[in-house]
Amino acid sequence: MNIGIVGLGLIGGSLAKAYKRAGAAVLGCDRDRVVTDYARLAEAIDGELDESHFKSCDVIFLAITPHEAVRWLIENAPGIPADTLVIDCCGTKRMICETGFDLGRRYGFTFVGGHPMAGRHKGGFKNSRAELFDGATMALVPAKRDNILLLERLKKLLQPAGFGHLLVTTAEKHDEVIAFTSQMTHLVSNAFIKSGTAEADAEMIAITGGSYRDFTRVAYLNEDMWTELFIENRDNLKKELDMLLSELSRYEKALEADDPEELRRLLAEGSRRKSEVEKICS
Amino acid sequence: MNIGIVGLGLIGGSLAKAYKRAGAAVLGCDRDRVVTDYARLAEAIDGELDESHFKSCDVIFLAITPHEAVRWLIENAPGIPADTLVIDCCGTKRMICETGFDLGRRYGFTFVGGHPMAGRHKGGFKNSRAELFDGATMALVPAKRDNILLLERLKKLLQPAGFGHLLVTTAEKHDEVIAFTSQMTHLVSNAFIKSGTAEADAEMIAITGGSYRDFTRVAYLNEDMWTELFIENRDNLKKELDMLLSELSRYEKALEADDPEELRRLLAEGSRRKSEVEKICS
Repeated sequence: MNIGIVGLGLIGGSLAKAYKRAGAAVLGCDRDRVVTDYARLAEAIDGELDESHFKSCDVIFLAITPHEAVRWLIENAPGIPADTLVIDCCGTKRMICETGFDLGRRYGFTFVGGHPMAGRHKGGFKNSRAELFDGATMALVPAKRDNILLLERLKKLLQPAGFGHLLVTTAEKHDEVIAFTSQMTHLVSNAFIKSGTAEADAEMIAITGGSYRDFTRVAYLNEDMWTELFIENRDNLKKELDMLLSELSRYEKALEADDPEELRRLLAEGSRRKSEVEKICS
Repeated sequence: MNIGIVGLGLIGGSLAKAYKRAGAAVLGCDRDRVVTDYARLAEAIDGELDESHFKSCDVIFLAITPHEAVRWLIENAPGIPADTLVIDCCGTKRMICETGFDLGRRYGFTFVGGHPMAGRHKGGFKNSRAELFDGATMALVPAKRDNILLLERLKKLLQPAGFGHLLVTTAEKHDEVIAFTSQMTHLVSNAFIKSGTAEADAEMIAITGGSYRDFTRVAYLNEDMWTELFIENRDNLKKELDMLLSELSRYEKALEADDPEELRRLLAEGSRRKSEVEKICS
């Protein structure tokens, strides 16, 4: 198996290590020369990927930001052979899939939108590891959802990296769901961490309930990457954020008015919803 | 060791089972006759607690809501012997401690504010278990913080129930910190669960990132208990909620204005704060 990887940060670096672990030949490159060299020294890649290798690659992963991925596709599409799959790893899917499907049709290669559902709080090659995707889900957006041969091929290509589950969806559905299951949690966590801590007793924060740890776990963000993802998905994200703001304002008004009845009603509504969501997801 | 427990819900029931596990004699009561009888049949208590037993109790735990605990203290204070400690288990501490310290001084017994830092999403005796407090922290609010003999006595009384750490604090500090480390996380989780789920793809919610699970973990609340706790701590809670609302509004405005620079600045600020908090808490 021959794997090409563009971008050797947390995701690209981990893919490289995972495929090396599986015995594949891995070529990779990073816009930062030092990272490419370091990845080679660390034996995460066998050599540097350039366009002369495209024809030997079973798959090329684009583990770069959405704008970089679009730029890479526009520059390199004419040289991608028909047998080489291109899969991106971006956190939003509409823009990149539109470009990828369009260029794929025009130049005769197959592009598949991808979003590996795994991560760590700190990015970069130095935090990458072969086990990152073990058991994780890869969301996949093919141009057509009923291409069984393509899905079989994706399964054979992705399982060796450790993925436990492939989820086929559309770019629209992906971006809608990701807005509240991931983007909103990161945004709110990043805002939440700014509360209260200044005056607080360190020992007490350290020991009080797991819920504070849960809420602030993903507060640390790579601001460049997430800004790009948020702006790209801003229609869905803004809708969710507006909903949360208006919901939280109802709790605020109930507190302001010292109105236990309204507060109780709001809390009961949330508890009911939690039971519904648990039923849906179980 | 003789233990009295008023209220046999999740906390009181778990205390009963934990002390029984440790070989103590446990008397308990619940406003619900059926629960008291069931606890006795389940051998979580040795018998029903009434005022005739107060003098044989080393400690009486009040595992009831703040208002019920205040009412219990007012009714029972005259009959509490000097050697019997009374510890409440309420999630807010200012109101109950004011009453408890005042009545303790007047009738010559020792009241200590307590908040066991453990819980489960679903309450009630049926969810109680002996292991609930194993390794957990008990926040303690004594009338005077420098009473070494009292602290030694508390340690000997609480360790057999499994507590791993006792944290001595003041009612004011406790309520201020608990507002953002626990009350706000529960409130926001309860509001957050109302987002997006209606239109979303169940399978995708089920598998997408741990952060959604983290955020909605504590969404299910006992609305009566939490309403009381929120209203009682509404000054601190409202301050925190107002801060979060104003912070989230800044993100919303940046999205609305399609302003990546401002969004990046906000995210970087949150990441810096996360690093600070991690340093404080490690």
